[in-house]
Amino acid sequence: MQRAGPQDFRRVLSSMCTEPHPAAREAAERFLATNPGDPATYETVADLEGEAVDVLGEVVGLPDAHGYVTSGGTEANIQAVRAARNLADTASPNVVAPESAHFSFPKAAEMLDVDLRLVPTDDDRRADPAAMRDAADADTALIVAVAGTTEYGRVDPVPALSTVADDVGALLHVDAAWGGFVLPFTDHEWHFGHAAVDTMTVDPHKMGRAVVPAGGLLARDQATLDALAVDTPYLESPSQASLTGTRSGAGVASAAAVLEAMWPDGYREQYERLQSLAEWFAAELEERGFDVVDPVLPLVAVDLPEDLFSSLRADGWRLSRTGAGELRVVCMPHVDRDVLSTFLDAVDRMTR
Amino acid sequence: MQRAGPQDFRRVLSSMCTEPHPAAREAAERFLATNPGDPATYETVADLEGEAVDVLGEVVGLPDAHGYVTSGGTEANIQAVRAARNLADTASPNVVAPESAHFSFPKAAEMLDVDLRLVPTDDDRRADPAAMRDAADADTALIVAVAGTTEYGRVDPVPALSTVADDVGALLHVDAAWGGFVLPFTDHEWHFGHAAVDTMTVDPHKMGRAVVPAGGLLARDQATLDALAVDTPYLESPSQASLTGTRSGAGVASAAAVLEAMWPDGYREQYERLQSLAEWFAAELEERGFDVVDPVLPLVAVDLPEDLFSSLRADGWRLSRTGAGELRVVCMPHVDRDVLSTFLDAVDRMTR
Repeated sequence: MQRAGPQDFRRVLSSMCTEPHPAAREAAERFLATNPGDPATYETVADLEGEAVDVLGEVVGLPDAHGYVTSGGTEANIQAVRAARNLADTASPNVVAPESAHFSFPKAAEMLDVDLRLVPTDDDRRADPAAMRDAADADTALIVAVAGTTEYGRVDPVPALSTVADDVGALLHVDAAWGGFVLPFTDHEWHFGHAAVDTMTVDPHKMGRAVVPAGGLLARDQATLDALAVDTPYLESPSQASLTGTRSGAGVASAAAVLEAMWPDGYREQYERLQSLAEWFAAELEERGFDVVDPVLPLVAVDLPEDLFSSLRADGWRLSRTGAGELRVVCMPHVDRDVLSTFLDAVDRMTR
Repeated sequence: MQRAGPQDFRRVLSSMCTEPHPAAREAAERFLATNPGDPATYETVADLEGEAVDVLGEVVGLPDAHGYVTSGGTEANIQAVRAARNLADTASPNVVAPESAHFSFPKAAEMLDVDLRLVPTDDDRRADPAAMRDAADADTALIVAVAGTTEYGRVDPVPALSTVADDVGALLHVDAAWGGFVLPFTDHEWHFGHAAVDTMTVDPHKMGRAVVPAGGLLARDQATLDALAVDTPYLESPSQASLTGTRSGAGVASAAAVLEAMWPDGYREQYERLQSLAEWFAAELEERGFDVVDPVLPLVAVDLPEDLFSSLRADGWRLSRTGAGELRVVCMPHVDRDVLSTFLDAVDRMTR
């Protein structure tokens, strides 16, 4: 089985994974055998994690950031819900989130036994602060905002949701797992510096070009992480706040390396290329008569006929859809004009 | 920061991480950029995961194994507790485990809001079936056995604990995270073929010599995994049973590769070398007048004076202790006679 080849990303258009940056790959290969879950034993990689968290703090407007490199956005979202649950002064905590929230929130709610209240979004598929306020109450432990939704790349109104959280005495979590490395180069208000955000998910292994697994959980206060800590007898380190125990040194080292290599200029150039690519692609699809959802960030959703979608999949294109059935094309760093032109040629051939 | 070197394992004596096998490392490097969390998009690595689970089934006496490659033993233990909780017919489920159970069980209990009942072990530090039976009741969702404890390498009496589980209508989970790749070459009764075990943790990234992250959760019945599944809109794959979302293709590919390379003969030779090393080391320590806990598996616990322990740590040895304060030396594949002789020389020098 060692002879089977790895994934060719060329036709992968709907994934939020991508080719890692060369610096990320190199660091991952060197640190494959270390465990940042036991920092007192594996000191070098523990230092790298501290450096990665510091730079992530710069990305999301949070000097003196607290946090760690998670296994991915799902762990970070679960941990944000868990911390809020543990800190809430109620026996029946609930979480209020827009219906656009990632499926890790239903997963977290099921695991953690909290009530998840999913609230319909507005006409532009963004969280609706008034409706979120109506759904929240004194038992609300956490308000969730998404900065770059998985389906449509929408950015929720984080300052207004911060007011909602403040009204009901809840924490505010921003899920910027995918959006966190493009939003710094836009005018959106989404981060710790723009509003009273308590926790954030921001994944180096998506737009950040680290290797999997390298997600990120950041917190304004150490107390939030302390609410997650368990004792760790028989490690050299006395406690750990991560969901997993042993963790990937490769992911941590790769995140530290790529953040140093790309932040901020490399990420800015990447954003500008991908945003312009998404806008060009959206225009090309519109010219062909398809309904396209305006790409606020580098993610294009388009309504395609069922038979065309099936033919494209049969042709080898790796595609997935929104809940409403649209094709979603995520302009990740491995996607370029050449790939999308080939895709459009396939569309033209199949609709001729 | 890329210039910082990775961990040198030479003086790491208390970790359950180790140098990966060359085949594992090679596969990991090739599959760094794939996501087995989305198997319909990343088909090659999904196939490798199926192959890894099949071989893991052979390791643990379970033909037609169900399961997946987790981020590590903690995730696998959490998921076993979660499945049992979700399948239990009670509003206040509890889990009964020996006090020797890994700290991931308290973590799981806190997350999943189940009552964890930790039961004192017997004189040989193994689970005590009569005491476990006394602690269990009609609300017990899960009985936990450990096959190779983290502190002393003890193997709980799995068949007797299976009777306890049956008595109270609970599931039986065996945590063989560390022991799973040494126990097949012993006479212990610990696996799916020896008793009515429902789920098991067995980690390729510990004694299996895969790269981190590559843990394993195995289940006798598909229904156990179904109890963990959540819907996954906007992936090509419709649902997922893993705790994390995006997962490490490197871990999965490395597990598949090293299992093919080492199972069973390579692991047998490894076990024989390490067990004999542990017995030699235990005898050397006893000769020096220290109290040693008999190494049932390749793990030696020894009572050292506090000042000697501190001096050894100051000398660069990466050491940790049991809850009772003994030094625990885990004879992992990177540990050999040469390293332990150097360690004993240091002990002799410091106690002269």
